[in-house]
Amino acid sequence: MFNRQSIEQTVAVLKQKFGDRLSQNDSVRSQHSHTTSRIPQQLPDAVIFAQSAEEVAEIITVCHEHKCPVIAFGVGSSLEGHVNAPYGGICIDMNGMDKILKVNQEDMDVVIQPGVTREALNDYLRDTGLFFPIDPGANASLGGMAATRASGTNAVRYGTMKDNILALQAVLPDGRLIRTGGRARKSSAGYDLTRLMIGSEGTLGVITEITLKLQGIPEMIAGGICSFPSIKAACQAVIQTIQYGIPVARIELLDELQIKASNAYSGLSLPMTPLLLLEFHGSEKSVAEQAEQFTMIAEEHTDEEFVWTTDPAERKKLWKARHDAYYATMALIPGAVGVSTDVCVPISQLADCVEETRIDLEENGLISTLIGHVGDGNFHCLPICMPDDQEAQDKITAFTKRLSERALKFGGTCTGEHGIGQGKQSYLLAELGEAVSVMESIKSTIDPKGIMNPGKIFST
Amino acid sequence: MFNRQSIEQTVAVLKQKFGDRLSQNDSVRSQHSHTTSRIPQQLPDAVIFAQSAEEVAEIITVCHEHKCPVIAFGVGSSLEGHVNAPYGGICIDMNGMDKILKVNQEDMDVVIQPGVTREALNDYLRDTGLFFPIDPGANASLGGMAATRASGTNAVRYGTMKDNILALQAVLPDGRLIRTGGRARKSSAGYDLTRLMIGSEGTLGVITEITLKLQGIPEMIAGGICSFPSIKAACQAVIQTIQYGIPVARIELLDELQIKASNAYSGLSLPMTPLLLLEFHGSEKSVAEQAEQFTMIAEEHTDEEFVWTTDPAERKKLWKARHDAYYATMALIPGAVGVSTDVCVPISQLADCVEETRIDLEENGLISTLIGHVGDGNFHCLPICMPDDQEAQDKITAFTKRLSERALKFGGTCTGEHGIGQGKQSYLLAELGEAVSVMESIKSTIDPKGIMNPGKIFST
Repeated sequence: MFNRQSIEQTVAVLKQKFGDRLSQNDSVRSQHSHTTSRIPQQLPDAVIFAQSAEEVAEIITVCHEHKCPVIAFGVGSSLEGHVNAPYGGICIDMNGMDKILKVNQEDMDVVIQPGVTREALNDYLRDTGLFFPIDPGANASLGGMAATRASGTNAVRYGTMKDNILALQAVLPDGRLIRTGGRARKSSAGYDLTRLMIGSEGTLGVITEITLKLQGIPEMIAGGICSFPSIKAACQAVIQTIQYGIPVARIELLDELQIKASNAYSGLSLPMTPLLLLEFHGSEKSVAEQAEQFTMIAEEHTDEEFVWTTDPAERKKLWKARHDAYYATMALIPGAVGVSTDVCVPISQLADCVEETRIDLEENGLISTLIGHVGDGNFHCLPICMPDDQEAQDKITAFTKRLSERALKFGGTCTGEHGIGQGKQSYLLAELGEAVSVMESIKSTIDPKGIMNPGKIFST
Repeated sequence: MFNRQSIEQTVAVLKQKFGDRLSQNDSVRSQHSHTTSRIPQQLPDAVIFAQSAEEVAEIITVCHEHKCPVIAFGVGSSLEGHVNAPYGGICIDMNGMDKILKVNQEDMDVVIQPGVTREALNDYLRDTGLFFPIDPGANASLGGMAATRASGTNAVRYGTMKDNILALQAVLPDGRLIRTGGRARKSSAGYDLTRLMIGSEGTLGVITEITLKLQGIPEMIAGGICSFPSIKAACQAVIQTIQYGIPVARIELLDELQIKASNAYSGLSLPMTPLLLLEFHGSEKSVAEQAEQFTMIAEEHTDEEFVWTTDPAERKKLWKARHDAYYATMALIPGAVGVSTDVCVPISQLADCVEETRIDLEENGLISTLIGHVGDGNFHCLPICMPDDQEAQDKITAFTKRLSERALKFGGTCTGEHGIGQGKQSYLLAELGEAVSVMESIKSTIDPKGIMNPGKIFST
């Protein structure tokens, strides 16, 4: 598929152009193919630290000429092997492209380079009264978040990356630079290339500029928690909350084992039953009304009280179990490694899908907590085991496969927010069938040489 | 490009299959190429009244084999010549595919056939407490609304068609049936073919099933109006409203001439200055709070009072100027014809863009009202003239061209919601440049024979 000699030639040509900004150092290459534990690392031949869209275009033009793979790299927080280089090639590190180019306060949008991270953007915006809401957990680069169609805890209110990007600038596989749109809030002008690039995981081009929608920082934020006797009861409360039109900003579910882990790790004393954590954004009156409405809903499904506050420090305390969830899980087996899974089902199917998943884990003797962005029907399991326990690791691999299949069985998707990458290609096919061949023909026509992030999304 | 004989052969083959459900009647063909006044009608060779996705696939398979154009038809309310048949061919009337297949109340979604109209859907949903929010004015078919990425007055709160469709089923140009997604609220599985089909104006395939997101019918709806001394003042109030995070459901602008026309036509006595009309959705408390917040904002920009109500009959009265706006404009010159235009700019540019447009109209002696979905920066002019006044019609054509160019100059788009169709192809190119060649290559790879709605979006 790719020729070793051509790749080496590409590196040599680019070395001449980029000098010290091209690294062939082992540790640099290794760091740039950082990936989840269950997918083995595959190193690029070289890493180039790009500083402008023009440089990215220059690199890709050379790679195109020599038919050399190109992988864009943000902060390496993706979870399905997106930054691996199975065929070697050039990794473009985008972190040098971290400028915030223009904040348009009246229009509530911002133009940024793709290396800007979520936290850096929000730090920068603080004085404007605006913020960018999408929060996948990691302090990811916004280019990476766009490329993987990321979302996270507050997608239930603010949507995913696809809903919060007005336009992109990108370098195509032949080195051409395109713009997919402007700053108008909506447009019916032609095919939606913006949305086509979002979630294409670097297989159609490299994003070099992003125009993001922003939101006003809420006047008030309230946080609250409530325990439920069962996952089913918690899910029913979530369904009613959404149906009632409460504009909840976050609504997270922690399962029983997660609560046990969190009580131990974070010194809490939560009831050992599923927990919902909520966040409301709005005016003082509005968050109070939302909290009261949720209180009434919760009363139908649990005897436990819904405890909430608008005090920032108290709110942090209430949400502590959620913030420490990952570390609490990992502490269940000191020295363990974990595999973060990701599926999403229609919310009506969530309780049943989670219940089957619980039984599956128990029957296979696996230890895994479960956390859900339940307003969207999206949930993650985090099965853990010791790094040298091959039997357990094989069981985990088999479990994650069954989990994807189960999500499809319940009318859902094999990935709500992590993407396909290397890990979920067969489920993409199972999920969308013939439509995948349409994706492949789009890939072939835009990238006929197949140089953009090869080996991702599609089985080759 | 297309061969007459092949088209006639296609008609003959399909006539055998569909009998009376294929019509070659002149008036039927004419009705199915109904379009705006300034784009001349171009009739298809035949109209087939389809009843299922399988039938649509069957028709398209035959058309594909013989290389015959295919145009899908909903209710014919599109405004840029989308249903014209410049190369003849087969028009597929989708109105027989009007079944609501499944309402999923807990998941707040519905699966429908594309011939279902917006009003029919909302009538059907009434008892469920749910509704579909997108309202482009016309009682359009949802298939047509998806194909043109329609939106309308309440996009400011609920988004456009691209934000309210979970998945599509569509027949490709070679007759294959694909599904672009499932019912999960979000997914990162592969390229976003759903969004690629939305707004593709029938050039990539024919939509045969749609899964729509629904919203809860608001507990309370408040409506209100407020006059402003200038467009600029009104726009400043809109900008502050959005920045303040007031979740306004509709915010419409009528210009001075529209007010004059409306006062005359609807027997109103509104001040002869620009008017904002607002609608708030939410709980009783929430709409009251929104109205109070807007009142405070308005006070900074006008001496006129913001009058609002939650009484449905009173609300209708307040909004009368908006509901009758089209007829009021047309009544300015009895017997006139009008051309509905559509551009969208960043909201910070709206006042200046409207001001320049006003001057343009005056300088050219044209009579046109102006209505804006101002929360999105989207506005329409409706220049009118007598049908036999060729000079005025030429002036209107020249004006609509300048309007598109002006929108681009102000960083906007040549179409906020009407689409490209036959009318705006040159502006698409001016707006997106090289990106259009990417759209063209996608078109060529999915529809290599060019049979799907030829002559639309792209200049051929």
